[in-house]
Amino acid sequence: MLTYYYAQRTCALAAHLALEHAGANYEALAVNFAVQAQRSPEFLAINPKGRVPALVTERGILTEIPALLLYVAQRFPEAGLAPLDDIFAVAQMQAFNSYLCSTVHVAHAHRVRGARWADDPAAIEAMKAKVPQNMTDCMLLIEKSMLQGPWVLGDRYSVADMYLYTISGWLEADGVETRLLPGIMDHRTRMRSDALVQRVEALYL
Amino acid sequence: MLTYYYAQRTCALAAHLALEHAGANYEALAVNFAVQAQRSPEFLAINPKGRVPALVTERGILTEIPALLLYVAQRFPEAGLAPLDDIFAVAQMQAFNSYLCSTVHVAHAHRVRGARWADDPAAIEAMKAKVPQNMTDCMLLIEKSMLQGPWVLGDRYSVADMYLYTISGWLEADGVETRLLPGIMDHRTRMRSDALVQRVEALYL
Repeated sequence: MLTYYYAQRTCALAAHLALEHAGANYEALAVNFAVQAQRSPEFLAINPKGRVPALVTERGILTEIPALLLYVAQRFPEAGLAPLDDIFAVAQMQAFNSYLCSTVHVAHAHRVRGARWADDPAAIEAMKAKVPQNMTDCMLLIEKSMLQGPWVLGDRYSVADMYLYTISGWLEADGVETRLLPGIMDHRTRMRSDALVQRVEALYL
Repeated sequence: MLTYYYAQRTCALAAHLALEHAGANYEALAVNFAVQAQRSPEFLAINPKGRVPALVTERGILTEIPALLLYVAQRFPEAGLAPLDDIFAVAQMQAFNSYLCSTVHVAHAHRVRGARWADDPAAIEAMKAKVPQNMTDCMLLIEKSMLQGPWVLGDRYSVADMYLYTISGWLEADGVETRLLPGIMDHRTRMRSDALVQRVEALYL
């Protein structure tokens, strides 16, 4: 059986949706960020990064959303969560997921986790001030040149949709003008209407 | 034929090494950052992100190092650049590469590209000041809990080694105390002794 460590209001939602959609046999364990449980010796023994998500498998522990999404898709191929028979489409999916983790999630993190990159309180405030612009720029790029529609990869639903949905839940708090993003907002509405998504997301609120 | 857009002193080196190692039939085109060629209408038509690398294939354009590395490994399986027959090992490789792109490269970028995340010059200086500590923390985590040795994935050389090598070339400039990192330094020395690596890297200096 798999064990999935997650925390409320984090990107762990993305791979959690994939596990659920795949019908995986897994246990979900919440890590309580309110008491800094991610920094406890017990959790650091599981994931030395002190972050979520972490997926415990029979062969070892895996981390990082783009890696977990591909792993779940490959481990449960019958669920059809990735275009595994097409290396170009897989590369497009991984490129999309890499952009989300390395640029979009990072742009977002400068609002709430600026202390990672500077100690000066004024600098942390300066970072926060730029988040609406950076997140808007990122989402406009996705809207105009990445989201093929109706799903990220076109007609084919995939784990990339779960990741986009996770991040598009942050837009209002990040100060993004969502009226500029009709495609992404329509995507979010369709995802949110899925009972499976609602069931998993209830754990994250 | 493939066309690979790269720029000197960038992470494009990683997938460039993979293309060369795979014996791919490709053309490499340098994008001149000194004249902001990455912001030209011609280049933005290729990659709307205005970044390198970008790989032009017969089916479209691909970006993002972790995606390109997996794509090259899957397109040229005879080169043996990834453990494609083992989904757990692929997930470990992708997790490693995701960590490099989303955390390590980002930590580094706060030294030279702080203007991405704040407008205030004092804030940009505050970010620079924290880079040595952040990069040291990242590299210690890799040294102690990710680099299996002698290669990233243990006995098996893979594209993850090319990406680690690319980033380990930045350590002195980032103020990292490399004496704390014997495993990574040994890895760098072994990579650098490879004539193929030297030939590609000569384009990046």
